[in-house]
Amino acid sequence: MTALYLVGIGTGDPGHLTLGAVAALNGADLILLPVKAGERGELAALRRALCATHLRDPAPPVTAFEMPERDPAIADYDARVRAWHDGIAARWAAAMSASGTAPASVALLVWGDPSLYDSTLRIAERLQANGAISAVHVVPGITAIQALCAAHRIPLNGIGQPVLVTTGRRLRADGWPADIPTVVVMLDGQCAFTTLLDRNLHIWWGAYLGMDREMLVAGPLADVSDRILAERQAARDRHGWIMDTYLLSAPADE
Amino acid sequence: MTALYLVGIGTGDPGHLTLGAVAALNGADLILLPVKAGERGELAALRRALCATHLRDPAPPVTAFEMPERDPAIADYDARVRAWHDGIAARWAAAMSASGTAPASVALLVWGDPSLYDSTLRIAERLQANGAISAVHVVPGITAIQALCAAHRIPLNGIGQPVLVTTGRRLRADGWPADIPTVVVMLDGQCAFTTLLDRNLHIWWGAYLGMDREMLVAGPLADVSDRILAERQAARDRHGWIMDTYLLSAPADE
Ligand SMILES: C[S@@+](CC[C@H](N)C(=O)[O-])C[C@H]1O[C@@H](n2cnc3c(N)ncnc32)[C@H](O)[C@@H]1O
Ligand SMILES: C[S@@+](CC[C@H](N)C(=O)[O-])C[C@H]1O[C@@H](n2cnc3c(N)ncnc32)[C@H](O)[C@@H]1O
Repeated sequence: MTALYLVGIGTGDPGHLTLGAVAALNGADLILLPVKAGERGELAALRRALCATHLRDPAPPVTAFEMPERDPAIADYDARVRAWHDGIAARWAAAMSASGTAPASVALLVWGDPSLYDSTLRIAERLQANGAISAVHVVPGITAIQALCAAHRIPLNGIGQPVLVTTGRRLRADGWPADIPTVVVMLDGQCAFTTLLDRNLHIWWGAYLGMDREMLVAGPLADVSDRILAERQAARDRHGWIMDTYLLSAPADE
Repeated sequence: MTALYLVGIGTGDPGHLTLGAVAALNGADLILLPVKAGERGELAALRRALCATHLRDPAPPVTAFEMPERDPAIADYDARVRAWHDGIAARWAAAMSASGTAPASVALLVWGDPSLYDSTLRIAERLQANGAISAVHVVPGITAIQALCAAHRIPLNGIGQPVLVTTGRRLRADGWPADIPTVVVMLDGQCAFTTLLDRNLHIWWGAYLGMDREMLVAGPLADVSDRILAERQAARDRHGWIMDTYLLSAPADE
């Protein structure tokens, strides 16, 4: 009977960690720490530092596991994602059983919040279905959206107005949504905002939000688009990876 | 030269408080604690308890101030909100100057996250414009959306799919959005989901999220709508107030 805690840790600022997250990590018998290949170990180091700072003696063991990559040989998008989730579930199960006896509670560090563009809940479902875990608990964490708004000191929404949260791929495919004044874009490796330069939009862009090297650019989209493209490329070249998020907003009178 | 910190405190669970929020509160020379009439002092007591638990000796003074109400005599919605914001700004300014010397930093406790359906950033702008404060800093907090998803253990979004965040008033006026599979509804005193019973939707509803009396209902909308209406009304009658949020989702194949 293993209970799994999906613990949101925020997006890089150690101050994002909640008291509930600290308690969940300290209450666990085992902590799982995902390591992604692309990030060059930086984010794994950040996760390790969080554990080192906040785990009280005697600290639960921390087990790192390498995240599998998606298999480019699987052509269908959904099938590829499913196979990848299966692979991750297998890694979790292996890490949990490595200790011999089944731990009563396992905590998994999740970037940002476990509910936002994150697959851990879907992976946990698989382990619940096959009996490897008996219960799932979610500890919410600060998202990249909140880190973006906080850094720019802006409201997410107009007064009483709706907001669309979407991905770069969907923004590119769907275009600007009708009757929605604000759009937040995540998971955009291709700078989909460049497809909207002919619209009268304002952009608030942020990369590495919450981290020491946080980057922020804001202004009329048509004016700052090139600057964002250039700074984004330069930062990506320098660090080997980038994570960015942006908010686009149409003037209230449109 | 007064710096104002808008400190998100989450939605009722003391575990929502971030380490950054605790640091900002302890670093302030003055803490402003809003008291709203409708909540019967319960949420003010909760805010006071957070301060009592987390402020280190010597703790900064905590000044409560009563939130003004909107003036029903102002017919125009925008004008009414503007007048109300002016009134709140005046209360903040009065509370800040009550101590005699201008504090170097003031922290204001904000429910949830300061960026989400919250007017403190717009009110702070007024005080910056008239010179009462010199800078604004935002400390993000856990939102009702995250508390809802965590309590139900559900992802906010379908894989790679967009999400619309809106209000009850807008959902009622605009209807179900085209091509968006998930909608989160806040600020809904009138249960706008009852206008969508003929659609094949699933609802995840939550009230008093993060609090001891948290209420959760989930299921096919047409099946659980009456139960939500009844439980919501009963809870509201019992406690004198209610805050609820819900997620509506259309099956993936629609
Ligand atoms: C797989 S999603 C995970 C989101 C995460 N669960 C959250 O709550 O923010 C990754 C995307 O989140 C955004 N993101 C995450 N961390 C970020 C950061 N520190 N700065 C900017 N964007 C970030 C980027 O848009 C990135 O493509
Ligand atoms: C003025 S908005 C403030 C939102 C807040 N800034 C946040 O980040 O969640 C108030 C609305 O938030 C939602 N809300 C806030 N706290 C809640 C709670 N504890 N449980 C359920 N809904 C809540 C309700 O929809 C309510 O009408």
